[in-house]
Amino acid sequence: MMAKYGYGIDIGGTAVKMGLFTETGELLEKWDIRTDVSESGIHIIPSIAKSVSDNIERHTLDRKNILGIGMGVPGCVLEGGFCTCVNLGWNNYPAPGTLRSLTGLEVRCANDANCAALGEAWLGSGKGHKDVVMITLGTGVGGGIILNGKIHTGIHGAAGELGHIPVNPRETRLCNCGNRGCLEMYTSANGNVRLAMDYLQEVDTPSPLRTAERINSKLCWDLAIAGDPVAVEIARRFSDYLGMGLAMIANIIDPEAIIIGGGVSRTGEPLRAMVESYFRKYAFHAVRNIDISIAQLGNDAGIYGCVKMLLD
Amino acid sequence: MMAKYGYGIDIGGTAVKMGLFTETGELLEKWDIRTDVSESGIHIIPSIAKSVSDNIERHTLDRKNILGIGMGVPGCVLEGGFCTCVNLGWNNYPAPGTLRSLTGLEVRCANDANCAALGEAWLGSGKGHKDVVMITLGTGVGGGIILNGKIHTGIHGAAGELGHIPVNPRETRLCNCGNRGCLEMYTSANGNVRLAMDYLQEVDTPSPLRTAERINSKLCWDLAIAGDPVAVEIARRFSDYLGMGLAMIANIIDPEAIIIGGGVSRTGEPLRAMVESYFRKYAFHAVRNIDISIAQLGNDAGIYGCVKMLLD
Repeated sequence: MMAKYGYGIDIGGTAVKMGLFTETGELLEKWDIRTDVSESGIHIIPSIAKSVSDNIERHTLDRKNILGIGMGVPGCVLEGGFCTCVNLGWNNYPAPGTLRSLTGLEVRCANDANCAALGEAWLGSGKGHKDVVMITLGTGVGGGIILNGKIHTGIHGAAGELGHIPVNPRETRLCNCGNRGCLEMYTSANGNVRLAMDYLQEVDTPSPLRTAERINSKLCWDLAIAGDPVAVEIARRFSDYLGMGLAMIANIIDPEAIIIGGGVSRTGEPLRAMVESYFRKYAFHAVRNIDISIAQLGNDAGIYGCVKMLLD
Repeated sequence: MMAKYGYGIDIGGTAVKMGLFTETGELLEKWDIRTDVSESGIHIIPSIAKSVSDNIERHTLDRKNILGIGMGVPGCVLEGGFCTCVNLGWNNYPAPGTLRSLTGLEVRCANDANCAALGEAWLGSGKGHKDVVMITLGTGVGGGIILNGKIHTGIHGAAGELGHIPVNPRETRLCNCGNRGCLEMYTSANGNVRLAMDYLQEVDTPSPLRTAERINSKLCWDLAIAGDPVAVEIARRFSDYLGMGLAMIANIIDPEAIIIGGGVSRTGEPLRAMVESYFRKYAFHAVRNIDISIAQLGNDAGIYGCVKMLLD
């Protein structure tokens, strides 16, 4: 076989998502293994190495046709591949070096949100573009900056920490990061709920949100789409913050495309359109028409981006 | 002579600043010529070409030892070198191509604020760093993003338009760009005066500012340093906006260094220190210790950056 292959590995707190790809980005097979965080996470890399080796054997792949393993980790990757990932128990742990020793394969490693951005830029919503910004709205808000088809990591590995851009200097409550008024406080899944609770306290307007057993981001957006005035105002505030945050990013980076991903973005077009209208309000005229789209690769974005790292 | 030389040309609305450099960045000679903006600025490039040719002759330089001409222009440079500079009368004018034809020399061209950032990153306050952000506080607020030692221009040539980052969603007045609440509205020379006028109206506290013949940025900072409580509050508000803006930039780019330049920055250390304290308040912890400094090359930063473009 002349084709080249690569493995994409996206390490999460509960599962490790793994994929076998061709070098053109065709996902041939994907599977999960459990993330064993016991003993400061020392079993994670060996179990990944074993799973990759098993896969190579099962497909009788020739190792010289394997480009290597790209790996995304939920934390910070410093130069030299030292990983600090609180959820995995890793503190300056040389994860890529260890995986390289165990498999004999080339290993590349980056932050998982950065890998997801690279995946979307390569074969998702950003396909065809070299400079792409992706923001991921999940439990928290993360992101990645892709410049010239590569991850821009920054000097501390903190570039693309889009969730902690200050957007509300008047906020008195604390963000998880210790600052006040970060974008994440309003546009993460929890942030969306925070906006809802705040507005429900501000006004007396009746709304199905008042009697809901549990308020989450999806319910807020579903009710907004159905026309509930309270939910519409919550969606408007959400979009105002996110549109302003994206305008800041666009004024600084001037990318070809901006992609919105993560669980909160599953609402899709109504969210995209409302965020875009606020983006256009706040953005400098030269960057006002930048394409804003919803991510396409879902939870697979990370493993796609991991493989893309092997091609550079 | 074996040494290599380069010309740095910074085109402004009233004067063209020109410099002859060695390839190591030694400025051998600098001079100005008048910017002739008549007839849609068609005389500007020919007069630059003549001035360069005269200089080559006078020094009897061998043309094969001349790396070329780097040129900074006060406006937008699109791919292919088409320049739109309102103050020069240029609308999609192929300035670098024209200069290349007239001189037979290699020509590189970029936005002037980007060139100044590159100059400071190369041999000014950012010396030794590859990823540097510079913000220029002048009549307006501009800037430049240097990544891996090169200008990041962005897809529309608008990267680094730092003056138009939205920092105050509650602003009702318009910025020159048509938006509201841009950083430039508070931290340019005029913006600083706007902050002063606003605060003087808000309070009754006596201050020398109330009887000043003309309020400008320098007077505000001089009085703040002297301890006038009104001027101190104006300086605090200025620093709060700028510190927050720089924190946004740092959270996105994670550069090695941030440089503050332009006329307003001439106050130096007191301004730098106060801006830094607000920066640290708003910045994400991973980027909180990024070095913030005042520009060192003054008005020459542009011609240094122009020459640096010839070395890549």
